Amino acid sequence: LASLQDALTRLVPVDEAASEAADRHQARLTKPPGALGGIETLGSQLAAIAGCAPPPIPRRPVVVIFAGDHGVLAEGVSPWPAEVTAQMVANFLAGGAAINAIAHEVGAAIVAVDVGVATPVPGPTERLVKANVRRGTGNIATEPAMTLGEARRAMQVGLSIADRLVDQGHDLLVTGDMGIGNTTPSAAVVAAVTGWPARSVTGRGTGISDEMLEVKAAVVERALERVADSRSVSATALAALDADVILAELGGLEIAGIVGLCIGGALRRVPVVIDGVISLAGALVATALAPEVAGYLVAGHRSVEPGATAALEHIGLEPLLDLQLRLGEGTGACLAIPLVRAAARVLHEMATFESAGVSGSTESAVEPEQAEQPEQPEQLGEPLSGPEPEGESSALE
Amino acid sequence: LASLQDALTRLVPVDEAASEAADRHQARLTKPPGALGGIETLGSQLAAIAGCAPPPIPRRPVVVIFAGDHGVLAEGVSPWPAEVTAQMVANFLAGGAAINAIAHEVGAAIVAVDVGVATPVPGPTERLVKANVRRGTGNIATEPAMTLGEARRAMQVGLSIADRLVDQGHDLLVTGDMGIGNTTPSAAVVAAVTGWPARSVTGRGTGISDEMLEVKAAVVERALERVADSRSVSATALAALDADVILAELGGLEIAGIVGLCIGGALRRVPVVIDGVISLAGALVATALAPEVAGYLVAGHRSVEPGATAALEHIGLEPLLDLQLRLGEGTGACLAIPLVRAAARVLHEMATFESAGVSGSTESAVEPEQAEQPEQPEQLGEPLSGPEPEGESSALE
Repeated sequence: LASLQDALTRLVPVDEAASEAADRHQARLTKPPGALGGIETLGSQLAAIAGCAPPPIPRRPVVVIFAGDHGVLAEGVSPWPAEVTAQMVANFLAGGAAINAIAHEVGAAIVAVDVGVATPVPGPTERLVKANVRRGTGNIATEPAMTLGEARRAMQVGLSIADRLVDQGHDLLVTGDMGIGNTTPSAAVVAAVTGWPARSVTGRGTGISDEMLEVKAAVVERALERVADSRSVSATALAALDADVILAELGGLEIAGIVGLCIGGALRRVPVVIDGVISLAGALVATALAPEVAGYLVAGHRSVEPGATAALEHIGLEPLLDLQLRLGEGTGACLAIPLVRAAARVLHEMATFESAGVSGSTESAVEPEQAEQPEQPEQLGEPLSGPEPEGESSALE
Repeated sequence: LASLQDALTRLVPVDEAASEAADRHQARLTKPPGALGGIETLGSQLAAIAGCAPPPIPRRPVVVIFAGDHGVLAEGVSPWPAEVTAQMVANFLAGGAAINAIAHEVGAAIVAVDVGVATPVPGPTERLVKANVRRGTGNIATEPAMTLGEARRAMQVGLSIADRLVDQGHDLLVTGDMGIGNTTPSAAVVAAVTGWPARSVTGRGTGISDEMLEVKAAVVERALERVADSRSVSATALAALDADVILAELGGLEIAGIVGLCIGGALRRVPVVIDGVISLAGALVATALAPEVAGYLVAGHRSVEPGATAALEHIGLEPLLDLQLRLGEGTGACLAIPLVRAAARVLHEMATFESAGVSGSTESAVEPEQAEQPEQPEQLGEPLSGPEPEGESSALE
């Protein structure tokens, strides 16, 4: 298994030539150029990630849910008690959480990882990945979340899990999180890395009151000022610090796990679909440590948390969904998996204008195809689903 | 099979009591209230449509692609030749179009219907539903698209197909269209029904030039003025006309087929997932003829066509996706099917706070559950997908 330092030196950028080959192919398919919008962009990104066009259709996605607790809960930033983190981990294992239903629907496996839970997980835990680095973070308003060594160990947990899952045949990784209070450290990390003001990236998390939101924003400001004071920089210039230092000072153990998963996915050249603001805080740290990672990331959705938008803009990601979600667990990212698969499938299964015998547009800028590729529609595979009235339905049903 | 007039009198509104029951259940599930955003709203709508909570998870979706040609093409509103309509129908039958790849991915069947194609469909057509009412419409800039009788026959085609598909076990209908030039009549119908100005609802369709867009907007204005003059009303007051008259004057045969499909889906109480601006033009006419239809409609996506946004606002639909699509065929609606299924599945498979033993929030407004429902997580079904490292994956793979 790769070590974190080793992984960071071995990362390669995505393959722009494969992306361009996919773009050229998209332009020949039987649709107006660009008419599939974000699906075409995504298909070409998948080609860049895999280094080939058409890219493989992801068949074995897996959601990795990193769980950790947060000392900052002592400041009153969430109405939920800390033990809900462990209880929700038990719920993932028992199959009763939102992520279980959504992963079931899209055909994704689930892995739950205790990387920093503070209280015992109730019930049977044989299937839990036990990789606890520390039983919850310090209170970031007054002390570092964790040591740099702990942050690196938690990142290594995520990296090793990514490596193992790809070895086992998983071909798409989805980030997920569970941690009561974790939108507070996420806002702090987002503010530190992007330079956006604390108040503009602090949101209502699970849906807190105006009063609690005020407390929460002040806590994020105090945390940023604490780190700035200790490093003798201004609170708006924290981005100059090393990203792993920001993670250790302001982050969370589950955020560190997500950083490792992003790096591991990029190392193994599989798409990493990113969930909401906690996952995006991890993605921000990962891309700050290694800019090559960004090309391997797909933003599953835009969370209602304002920090999510700050992080998406900073990394340069356009989210696939915007359904006003604010749950975490990987739910928004998992809901986007069928779009990822569809983007790859379009490149495999669509006919070209020439192969289908469809006339072009008089305004079209489509290049003529090579005469030596006279493929017939019949060679593109069986029709997936025939017209009725015989009730014919697709192979997937 | 229901006749159109009969169907319009037999329609019933969606079941608000079932929707409220779903809302109450959503509030007890192991997530912060409302945290699944649009997925929760959709789940409750599905309950209202089916008249029960939880609603069935759609297992046999079907995309119905109505194809028709347009006399207005003579005005120079599209760079694509008319015969592409028939060629693309052949492409659907051969399995090479974008809708084939996307329907394959999401497990939807496809039905292609010739309701108004002008030229012969090349190649084998045994699986085409042949229901041609007229070989293309009149040029709406100068004459009615069709007679009122033709419009009603084309709506009846859509209604009968919906009825037959639901009889065959399909439990979710998706609207699709093919018709070179059909964003022009769609813009005209949208302008007439919503009262939005012609220029604000006329878009670039397949991606036309500034010059052609100018021609197109002027054509839409001329068409609206022609109808206004013939009925002695102002061009901004066309909404006062009967919706079937607007359809006959300004619409298309495939739009009429979609109107019938929407009414048929509502009659049979199955969700009808609506595609882009052509489908929305049909949905506008359907809801103008029978307001009860609106509750059965799910907007699959927001097309880049400005008329789509006008129609969505007018009907009161919030689209699930916004991926900058402008293709039609049902592609954007079909991409949304996994979201529809996920919304229903959440209501079937998630545990409640009580059943999962998860503590509540101190700010939570969740009602306590009835003591006589002490369900255990084990009773909610097998866990769908276990954590690794054994490579355990979900039942769907």
